[in-house]
Amino acid sequence: MARINENYLKLKAGYLFPEIGRRVGAYQEAHPDAAVIKLGIGDVTRPLVPAIIEAFHGAVDEMATDEGFRGYGPEQGYGFLLDLIRENDYEARGVSIANDEIFVSDGSKCDSGNIQEIFGLDNVVALADPVYPVYLDTNVMAGRTGEADDAGHYAGIVYMPAVAENGFHPDPPSTKADLIYLCSPNNPTGTVSTKEHLARWVEYAKKNDAVILFDAAYEGFISDPSLPRSIYEVDGARDVAIEFRSFSKSAGFTGTRCAFTVVPKTVKGKTASGDEVSLNGLWHRRHTTKFNGVSYPVQRAAAAAYSPEGRRQTGDVVAFYMENARLIREGLSKAGLEVYGGENAPYIWFRTPGDMSSWDFFDQLLQKTQVVGTPGSGFGPSGEGYFRLSAFNSRANVEEAISRVSRAPW
Amino acid sequence: MARINENYLKLKAGYLFPEIGRRVGAYQEAHPDAAVIKLGIGDVTRPLVPAIIEAFHGAVDEMATDEGFRGYGPEQGYGFLLDLIRENDYEARGVSIANDEIFVSDGSKCDSGNIQEIFGLDNVVALADPVYPVYLDTNVMAGRTGEADDAGHYAGIVYMPAVAENGFHPDPPSTKADLIYLCSPNNPTGTVSTKEHLARWVEYAKKNDAVILFDAAYEGFISDPSLPRSIYEVDGARDVAIEFRSFSKSAGFTGTRCAFTVVPKTVKGKTASGDEVSLNGLWHRRHTTKFNGVSYPVQRAAAAAYSPEGRRQTGDVVAFYMENARLIREGLSKAGLEVYGGENAPYIWFRTPGDMSSWDFFDQLLQKTQVVGTPGSGFGPSGEGYFRLSAFNSRANVEEAISRVSRAPW
Repeated sequence: MARINENYLKLKAGYLFPEIGRRVGAYQEAHPDAAVIKLGIGDVTRPLVPAIIEAFHGAVDEMATDEGFRGYGPEQGYGFLLDLIRENDYEARGVSIANDEIFVSDGSKCDSGNIQEIFGLDNVVALADPVYPVYLDTNVMAGRTGEADDAGHYAGIVYMPAVAENGFHPDPPSTKADLIYLCSPNNPTGTVSTKEHLARWVEYAKKNDAVILFDAAYEGFISDPSLPRSIYEVDGARDVAIEFRSFSKSAGFTGTRCAFTVVPKTVKGKTASGDEVSLNGLWHRRHTTKFNGVSYPVQRAAAAAYSPEGRRQTGDVVAFYMENARLIREGLSKAGLEVYGGENAPYIWFRTPGDMSSWDFFDQLLQKTQVVGTPGSGFGPSGEGYFRLSAFNSRANVEEAISRVSRAPW
Repeated sequence: MARINENYLKLKAGYLFPEIGRRVGAYQEAHPDAAVIKLGIGDVTRPLVPAIIEAFHGAVDEMATDEGFRGYGPEQGYGFLLDLIRENDYEARGVSIANDEIFVSDGSKCDSGNIQEIFGLDNVVALADPVYPVYLDTNVMAGRTGEADDAGHYAGIVYMPAVAENGFHPDPPSTKADLIYLCSPNNPTGTVSTKEHLARWVEYAKKNDAVILFDAAYEGFISDPSLPRSIYEVDGARDVAIEFRSFSKSAGFTGTRCAFTVVPKTVKGKTASGDEVSLNGLWHRRHTTKFNGVSYPVQRAAAAAYSPEGRRQTGDVVAFYMENARLIREGLSKAGLEVYGGENAPYIWFRTPGDMSSWDFFDQLLQKTQVVGTPGSGFGPSGEGYFRLSAFNSRANVEEAISRVSRAPW
């Protein structure tokens, strides 16, 4: 009989968000009239902006004509989108990235999950704890870990606790790690790395010949001009870092699907015999062999986010979410909770009241206030005792949710 | 330094179609006025049909409203599309498949490339030769092979020559294989398996505890009612086969991106200790962890292919391509070539004249007639001495191409 990939059996439970969906579904079935407000999964709620809708329609119309129809496009993305990314996301911030270092994809979840495929199984992976579960799960599935212990720590992974005591900015590990996943603005803690934070990681990567896998899916929420929006704003990062970006949160594309990954040609890995190999070529090979490009109308829609109208309109939506974040942050603080994040990031992270476990608080919050959040422990053992709310909802729902949470007897 | 996945270095050359693109590009640069006709890559050329365009626009409009906006959808696909697939592609043909056995994706290239991830590295892979390169390349990249020999055969792979002598229908191997890739209607040979052919494979899989990975991306081109459009039309296949389907060729979605994979819950793999594990659960885990769903407007567009107008309109397009196929098949035969395929499949496969190598013929065809095809050897060593033309082009281009080829001095 065909043998399965037994690494999958090491995974502890279903992916976090399906489990939340299951519990909320069960609650709603038992309480069909309850007005549940979801601030759990980080999913945007506002419609696509007019500039994007117009471009999306325009490209669909092209697909209806002999002249405008597009079949297979370049797997790496169309030049019109690569140009806009290069100019607006990089050159405008003083960063030099070439078009063939950019790979347009259907999502940062996919990219940050697939990137480990170009690396050997013997690399040591370092992760913040708590962390976006995809980084860890995909390494478990690939066989880069042993079994998990009772606390949920997998053998072979270097965990870097990100907790209130270190300001959610863990130091580089004292041991040698080869692949380091970083995320800023951070999911789930809502904290944002400064250039100085990132410079320490670049220094560590150079010293240890490591590669940084930098997830910047939330960079669109940074308003503080002193904060880096790309790791390449830090000297030397072009030699050691791969960056993930997404239209999901900044342009409302969670259901439309477009993202990109930057792999500078200067980032190298090595073979067992010590030869250096450009990771750009390996990712190109992976991307062209296991992926077939993003839908043409979707790429046109994404390109419209860079037009003057697109920038203004998506900027207004981001500002709307960030006002939600402010209301949540201040509301929770007033309710006496210990609150982090929510500035330059759409996530608010707080300690559960009374040392409650994260899942107990999830259940109590749902039962007492009909508000859905995300248990911190779902992001890793050091997330235990914390909880995440997201700023993605209507103003009325956010105000109602905070009002309910403030009245609840914690 | 981070270690690379050295399996990538075993790959012999760039993926076939980029290499063709390179040679055609060089020719066009040297001959800017040449009227090149591309019958190489299997890419559709006709616009999306009106029923699909209308649904696509409708869904984009939904994304512009508070009520209609969709963020993250179910990774497996929306229920409205799963229902249509189940009813039209399976129930209508007497096959029982449940919605949760269907996984909507952004392409069969992705699915047929990713599927091997849920299997252990110690499985023996059997492939037709020639074959769609993605099946082989993704197994090389995963480490399921040794190095390639001079002929291009990778150590550890069971190759099954598909040549004129066996009617391009290789027998099941005499040795034991665990994972068997089949494709019907076949890319590249254009041959189509009967129920009797497939029944022999199902029997082999049952006897050897193997899993069949059945690529039916071209089933929409079957017009002979006696031919199976799904492997599940064969008794017992539900226990041993995974099936890939696509909207790319039948509905013109190569640039729009939608496909699906069927993993019946009855297909099992086993662990080293002999426990049976449902492959449906493993693929569900892979799909929800490394993929984030297909664009909502694209799923609505795909669903429209099942409406009465959608079926009629896409049926007309398929009939148009199949008339092209007939013209190519008959034109090449009249020119004295030994021609296969092109009936119930959009690919015409023929022997190169005068025992020319496939790439020599590619270059000569381009130089003498400005027609681009695909060298048979690009699909595997046993494709050497064969050549593929596709039926995807305008009628005028097909007629002109056949006229030029017929006049050329072979």
